[in-house]
Amino acid sequence: MTMIAYLGPAGTFTEMAALRYLQLKYPDLEHYPSRMCPYPTISQAIKAAENGEVEIAVVPIENSIQGGVTMTLDSLWQSELLQIQQAIVLPIAHALITRAEKLTDIKTVYSHPQGLAQCQQWLDQHLPTVQQIATDSTTEGLHTVAEDITAAAIASERAAEIYNLPILEFPINDQPDNFTRFLVLGRTATTTQGTHSSLAFSLKRNMPGALVKPLLVFADRQINLSRIESRPTKRSLGEYIFFIDIDAPIDDPNFYEALQELQSVTENLKILGSYEVC
Amino acid sequence: MTMIAYLGPAGTFTEMAALRYLQLKYPDLEHYPSRMCPYPTISQAIKAAENGEVEIAVVPIENSIQGGVTMTLDSLWQSELLQIQQAIVLPIAHALITRAEKLTDIKTVYSHPQGLAQCQQWLDQHLPTVQQIATDSTTEGLHTVAEDITAAAIASERAAEIYNLPILEFPINDQPDNFTRFLVLGRTATTTQGTHSSLAFSLKRNMPGALVKPLLVFADRQINLSRIESRPTKRSLGEYIFFIDIDAPIDDPNFYEALQELQSVTENLKILGSYEVC
Repeated sequence: MTMIAYLGPAGTFTEMAALRYLQLKYPDLEHYPSRMCPYPTISQAIKAAENGEVEIAVVPIENSIQGGVTMTLDSLWQSELLQIQQAIVLPIAHALITRAEKLTDIKTVYSHPQGLAQCQQWLDQHLPTVQQIATDSTTEGLHTVAEDITAAAIASERAAEIYNLPILEFPINDQPDNFTRFLVLGRTATTTQGTHSSLAFSLKRNMPGALVKPLLVFADRQINLSRIESRPTKRSLGEYIFFIDIDAPIDDPNFYEALQELQSVTENLKILGSYEVC
Repeated sequence: MTMIAYLGPAGTFTEMAALRYLQLKYPDLEHYPSRMCPYPTISQAIKAAENGEVEIAVVPIENSIQGGVTMTLDSLWQSELLQIQQAIVLPIAHALITRAEKLTDIKTVYSHPQGLAQCQQWLDQHLPTVQQIATDSTTEGLHTVAEDITAAAIASERAAEIYNLPILEFPINDQPDNFTRFLVLGRTATTTQGTHSSLAFSLKRNMPGALVKPLLVFADRQINLSRIESRPTKRSLGEYIFFIDIDAPIDDPNFYEALQELQSVTENLKILGSYEVC
């Protein structure tokens, strides 16, 4: 039975993405909730899939406002086994969940740092003096909201429903066009059938600026990069790992040839997967 | 009299970078502290320099472990006037500042999200059940530490000294090789004498994947990019702003020619500055 790890608890946007994946992949399945395993951090959800506790981990990789989710990028690079099985894009709308009857009664607001950041202008305008407390997930603060009438949490409408708590304002995200892309990670070998491919590489040591060679591999073949993101190697300032997305399947002959050449100009090259986006 | 805005309050690593800049630039100056204007957020410090309240803003741009400081990248893109005058690299070492006598007495830890992230493994190991509270600066939590014996803050040794509070553990950052690069921003026109140059560009709308063309402009001329970082345009998922660092002065003929060509393949191109790193 397929078990799915996700950044929990129930009611996070990641849970919504994980449910979407199950419904797409196994439309006839019953008892979805019994397959869902919430984890308190992204790295724990990823490790659970890596060591076989679960088959699949669903984690956020990128938000249209806040950018890349660095914890996911760093965990992907460290993973030896996981491949991207699928990408899922969901619209994000945040609710202010509180038992307070009006905004002026609120003293603290809890949310994941990305949740706080995505509502920053709204918070600056409507709750300028309120203490903002970062939590490991958008729903962690809901337990406090249930007990403390001066507390509020920023989370999904679904979270309010699950925890049976009232919504005071909705939506409160600064940008109405707010989308998050999630990755479905598993140990199944990468397909060659996907429409999108992702890879990551580090550069040879003591050549921190030698990014031009790997880029030339793609540019020479007119292979378009739909995304390039850098993360520090954590070894020394100025050394990076590059994450690249390409809108092509991995068995595209042009792309395959590029991968061969890329081996010779990178230190460590990882194929992260070939997958569909839905 | 040159006034400097920085991410405050006093005792932040950004203050140390700002003091370093003043000492380098004006070695004979007296009364450094009277020139230092702390601001509670990066965006407010940058706006103060933008609108002329101060001459200079000093802000963090990149840490060797945590990567780019997204707030600084986003503010730089929005700024119409500011140019990078100088980059400053400082080693970062975090202290656990608390009036508690032992770790088991601590119930909450306050720090800037980057401070918490840079000590994450140490916190997981030594204070696994403690609530982590994100603040706008590494020193904001020191006021709470002064009042509450169960509170701790992660900040610099200098912060402990300024606030006259005891250090329980030092250093607690997960990686001993931890460096942050800071930018000195001002309205002075960019010099052509710097050893490093930075620029940023967005791609033409409805061509979200067309990154290959700008990269080809550099690759064709064998101009090495020492850093490339992407940020979302915040318009729609898959559209990015690219920040590029080049180890060459802006008046290098090869680089100058590349800039001309870059104009035609980008939507909006900003020269962020040409500067020295120290």
